[in-house]
Amino acid sequence: MASMTTEMKLIDMERKNISFSVEELTNIIDGSREETAIRRRVEHIIENDPVLKHKSLLHMSREERFTESIRRTVYFLKTLCPRMGWTSQSREARYFERALKERSFVVHSGAFVPSMKSFGTKEQAEKWHKLAANLNIIGTYAQTELGHGTFLRGLETVATYDRATQEFVINCPRISAMKWWPGEMGKSANHVFLMAELVIDGKKYGMHGFMVQIRDLTTHEPLPGVTVGDIGTKVSFETVDNGFLYLRSVRVPRENLLSKLAQVAPDGTYTKKASDRLMYGSMVRLRVGLLGSEVVMPLSKACTIAVRYSAVRRQGLLDPNKDEVPVLNYVSQQHKLLPQVATAYVANFASKQLIKMYVIFLKKVDSGDIEQLPELHALSAGLKAMLTEQSTMGAEILRRACGGHGYSYGSGLPFIVNRMLASCTYEGENTVMYLQCARYLMKCADKARDKKLTGTVAYLNDSSSGVCPARTSDDFLSLNILMKCYENRAKCVIQQAASKLQQKIRSGLPMHNAWNMVAPFLIRAAKEHIMQYLVETSCKFVNDLTCSDPVKKILTQLCALYALHHINNSPGDFITNGCLNSAQCDIAHDTEVYLLGILRPDAVGIVDAFDFTDDILQSCLGAYDGNVYERLFEWAKEAPMNRTEVHQDSYQLLRPYLHKGRDVLEGAAKSKL
Amino acid sequence: MASMTTEMKLIDMERKNISFSVEELTNIIDGSREETAIRRRVEHIIENDPVLKHKSLLHMSREERFTESIRRTVYFLKTLCPRMGWTSQSREARYFERALKERSFVVHSGAFVPSMKSFGTKEQAEKWHKLAANLNIIGTYAQTELGHGTFLRGLETVATYDRATQEFVINCPRISAMKWWPGEMGKSANHVFLMAELVIDGKKYGMHGFMVQIRDLTTHEPLPGVTVGDIGTKVSFETVDNGFLYLRSVRVPRENLLSKLAQVAPDGTYTKKASDRLMYGSMVRLRVGLLGSEVVMPLSKACTIAVRYSAVRRQGLLDPNKDEVPVLNYVSQQHKLLPQVATAYVANFASKQLIKMYVIFLKKVDSGDIEQLPELHALSAGLKAMLTEQSTMGAEILRRACGGHGYSYGSGLPFIVNRMLASCTYEGENTVMYLQCARYLMKCADKARDKKLTGTVAYLNDSSSGVCPARTSDDFLSLNILMKCYENRAKCVIQQAASKLQQKIRSGLPMHNAWNMVAPFLIRAAKEHIMQYLVETSCKFVNDLTCSDPVKKILTQLCALYALHHINNSPGDFITNGCLNSAQCDIAHDTEVYLLGILRPDAVGIVDAFDFTDDILQSCLGAYDGNVYERLFEWAKEAPMNRTEVHQDSYQLLRPYLHKGRDVLEGAAKSKL
Repeated sequence: MASMTTEMKLIDMERKNISFSVEELTNIIDGSREETAIRRRVEHIIENDPVLKHKSLLHMSREERFTESIRRTVYFLKTLCPRMGWTSQSREARYFERALKERSFVVHSGAFVPSMKSFGTKEQAEKWHKLAANLNIIGTYAQTELGHGTFLRGLETVATYDRATQEFVINCPRISAMKWWPGEMGKSANHVFLMAELVIDGKKYGMHGFMVQIRDLTTHEPLPGVTVGDIGTKVSFETVDNGFLYLRSVRVPRENLLSKLAQVAPDGTYTKKASDRLMYGSMVRLRVGLLGSEVVMPLSKACTIAVRYSAVRRQGLLDPNKDEVPVLNYVSQQHKLLPQVATAYVANFASKQLIKMYVIFLKKVDSGDIEQLPELHALSAGLKAMLTEQSTMGAEILRRACGGHGYSYGSGLPFIVNRMLASCTYEGENTVMYLQCARYLMKCADKARDKKLTGTVAYLNDSSSGVCPARTSDDFLSLNILMKCYENRAKCVIQQAASKLQQKIRSGLPMHNAWNMVAPFLIRAAKEHIMQYLVETSCKFVNDLTCSDPVKKILTQLCALYALHHINNSPGDFITNGCLNSAQCDIAHDTEVYLLGILRPDAVGIVDAFDFTDDILQSCLGAYDGNVYERLFEWAKEAPMNRTEVHQDSYQLLRPYLHKGRDVLEGAAKSKL
Repeated sequence: MASMTTEMKLIDMERKNISFSVEELTNIIDGSREETAIRRRVEHIIENDPVLKHKSLLHMSREERFTESIRRTVYFLKTLCPRMGWTSQSREARYFERALKERSFVVHSGAFVPSMKSFGTKEQAEKWHKLAANLNIIGTYAQTELGHGTFLRGLETVATYDRATQEFVINCPRISAMKWWPGEMGKSANHVFLMAELVIDGKKYGMHGFMVQIRDLTTHEPLPGVTVGDIGTKVSFETVDNGFLYLRSVRVPRENLLSKLAQVAPDGTYTKKASDRLMYGSMVRLRVGLLGSEVVMPLSKACTIAVRYSAVRRQGLLDPNKDEVPVLNYVSQQHKLLPQVATAYVANFASKQLIKMYVIFLKKVDSGDIEQLPELHALSAGLKAMLTEQSTMGAEILRRACGGHGYSYGSGLPFIVNRMLASCTYEGENTVMYLQCARYLMKCADKARDKKLTGTVAYLNDSSSGVCPARTSDDFLSLNILMKCYENRAKCVIQQAASKLQQKIRSGLPMHNAWNMVAPFLIRAAKEHIMQYLVETSCKFVNDLTCSDPVKKILTQLCALYALHHINNSPGDFITNGCLNSAQCDIAHDTEVYLLGILRPDAVGIVDAFDFTDDILQSCLGAYDGNVYERLFEWAKEAPMNRTEVHQDSYQLLRPYLHKGRDVLEGAAKSKL
């Protein structure tokens, strides 16, 4: 790859025309110049470590990948981290995920280890936490069952207290009750934090957490009564042994009930010690946490790949008298790519604001104040649903925008999309999340009649006219006008859903039926509330930002593009509620197209600012230097099918027929001579 | 699986409540009672054939699957078909695809073999056709290149005529010029039908088709100058060796230019013999053909799986005082599933109408009349784009509607979705397709001013008022009213796009720039034209159908649901153009929810009518008997990771740490004793 290819020259030219400081934007994305430096240091060390250095996982079988990922993770946790002095508390920790790309024991470290402290007494935490943190036991969080996911109260696994032996007897009463899906449970874990219905003397006490050993500590064989294994191929997560666990009369000592919230005395007396609402807190934590690593990061990667490739992929004649042009020059292509780039920025800013809010909440919890929990629960549920949905769809749009090559794993995009798809289902299925958010909104709408609302729903108080004053494209570039549009729409739609619900109840339906009948409207209300939050939060973030003018301009345009794109994509509720009229919708459309043209020259810079190294991107199409075609060719040549020129197994099946063809063709050739 | 599980009882009950004859509906879907019988016979023979009988491909490596698929295909073509007297002309042929699930040599049979007759002279066809049809040569259609897909004129491969030897010298001048993607090219094909720029004495003559031998007829090794191989992992199509082909000074005799459309004399004289427009005809054929097998069938499968599973999957309490209910009882779930079921029916009826139109067109072509080609080209391009897009999105909605299990390959859904995704890109990338359709529409809009339009654009003549008369839910259940709504919207949006285009041109922009600037509006115009076609065609099909009242009722409701769902999903253009007002939109929403409730009791029957055997569905969630959980468990147990209880390779990495944990835990236990 000595001389510069046409593609390399093209991307080089793009970079010469960037109007702002890419480094400054990178620092804003990271949070500060210092954070960028720490992140780069972690990435540099990991990328250059001889053991962790990239080895293409794509050409391995699933089992090879599974083992290789464990090898890397164990090395990372037990060798590299101690050597560097990195712990899960150190500032470097937040960049491990990004730099390592694939790692094992994410559930172990992210759910099992912290649950010792969240659910255990001080004594229990002391016993288990250190063992778990040191990989001396491997555990997982065993909650979902074959027949039950999001609906916690429906779980069927039972832990019955046996007073005689002071043990809990754990049973999955039917096949559908077996634990199913927990990551790392199939082959790795020898312990599980198990959620089961506690039963004492025939009385049910609801879901409780138990520490259950499932594999022998010496041989790693499953213990008696335990049937455990891998649940088979999934769309992605090849390196994770999501598992099934079927327990039949498995006994654990009384001390293995994690007893911070409730305890069982030797004689079977049950004592409640703290509110179950704390359990919601840990759900909120998981949902807040996943937005960065499972939504913002992969979407930003996909944007980087698709924009860079579109800058070098020449196809078609825009002007019939000139040469082929990069597809990025087509408005239809900009219309696919740039709104997704805007989404990546908006999601980044909004999820950062959510984390800030969560940190403040945690401080309040320490002083016993959990008043904000319902708001935070609703917001994190809704944001989780909306951002996973939008980003997954965005990544798929970007994948398709890369044409045929987007379908090849060499593009790096299928890996990203397939993994993101799961985020729409895990940690709370999205529809359920919207409905939980809507439940909070309906309560707020109710309250708003005689009380002033605060926080993220304060806009529901506003009784000013909902008519948008915009008359020109310039007006529609104003973030204040756009914020107001979204506020007005959300307010109307929430009120509308509330009145539909009331109407059904007044007509005599019981609440649960009424709720079911208006579910599609409730979901819409939740979505439009969250859209309001996203537009407002990101616009305010950008408004308040101290930075250079060119960067401010780009970020303002990205926020406007995000808001306009979603107005134009579904103007329905803006119009029917009188927030916008037809003429304004027409201007909004034109303004979006105008913005695409304005952002086009900076597109490569805007994705460069995400600052992914080639090693992290793992994409032939997205590499920094633009040399896409040579990379794809090199990548393809490594495919296992190309180990030999002739694929013997399949060829043998065809050989007799092909030899007959040879005889005909060569016979004909001879007779011709 | 002796006694009936709860799930089996649930689906049994569903079937007892079906209001119509499932068999009658199946016959309508198939076309007639006789067609159903032929289809079932083919399926029965293939499912019970000892060689073809299902063997789970999912737990095989890609290479095992590749070889297994070739083994089955060769057996099918060379043993079973001759035994049964089946040929590609026989009526049974249209059901091979469905019954076989995965087969090899689809490009060979579907594109290479017919191209001998389409592009070759009678003599050439005689030489090559029989060899290819008998698998005595394996070929593929080598058109797309690493750097070029849909834009045909950009292809870079060159065939230069050498008068001295009467040969063509074929070269890929740069890496991006190598052929890339053709199915079956990587390992199987020993010939390709190659599209290359013909050059004689330095003059370019455009794209022509050449027969090029690429592998040795005896050893199957690549010939000198040929670099060929598999392009690596893709999202799906594991059994297809999509390939790359890099040709450097490869010589083929003059006779290998397929010369039906043009020929080169020994002295290099070039003669055009027929119109290139005939090439469009073959593109239309491929696009018409793929809708049934790659859109309607997989979407129908996904519907079957998701609806059946939703009928047995109990989760959550609708009424807090009662038992858990099947998720199909939730309106939010119905709102995900039933519109996709409606889409499967609409796509079925519309693609059948398109085939009818194409057959009539072919008859006219025989008498030299190709007047209808532009209309058919535009329609097939737009329908290909719209139906692949809608169905792919629909299948993904259905996959997510199955919760976590939808992410497992055991559900059968990832296999369906991953394969469908490709259809949005192959045979013409969807955005390009919409724009080609729009080009035709813009010409029509222009013509409509002084000429009466006929055929699929005739509605553009109509100058009646666009205001919808609907005032009640009953009105919105009328197919005539719905058809009119879509007509009016399409008419307005097409006229709007045309006037935006004119405006840009009047402002002084050259046509190509104007076209680029308004591309998003042109795409919308094409989409809404196609939606109009889909709604009208399917409604008319149902209106004209002779069948029992209950079946008529169901089909009418499905058409109405389809039309209403898309109004409610994007009411924007209906409102801004004055086709519907806010109050009507509100009624349309309520009517959709009402329809969901009406269709709910028949949902299982409506998907049963697609008549997929368990063997064809390949889904633990979608099997006819509803016994989902035992099937998932049985399937998971077969996963390669479960061959041994302890996964030794990964366990060895953890053992030292886990043994330390054992020492701590057992030490503690001992000291306690």
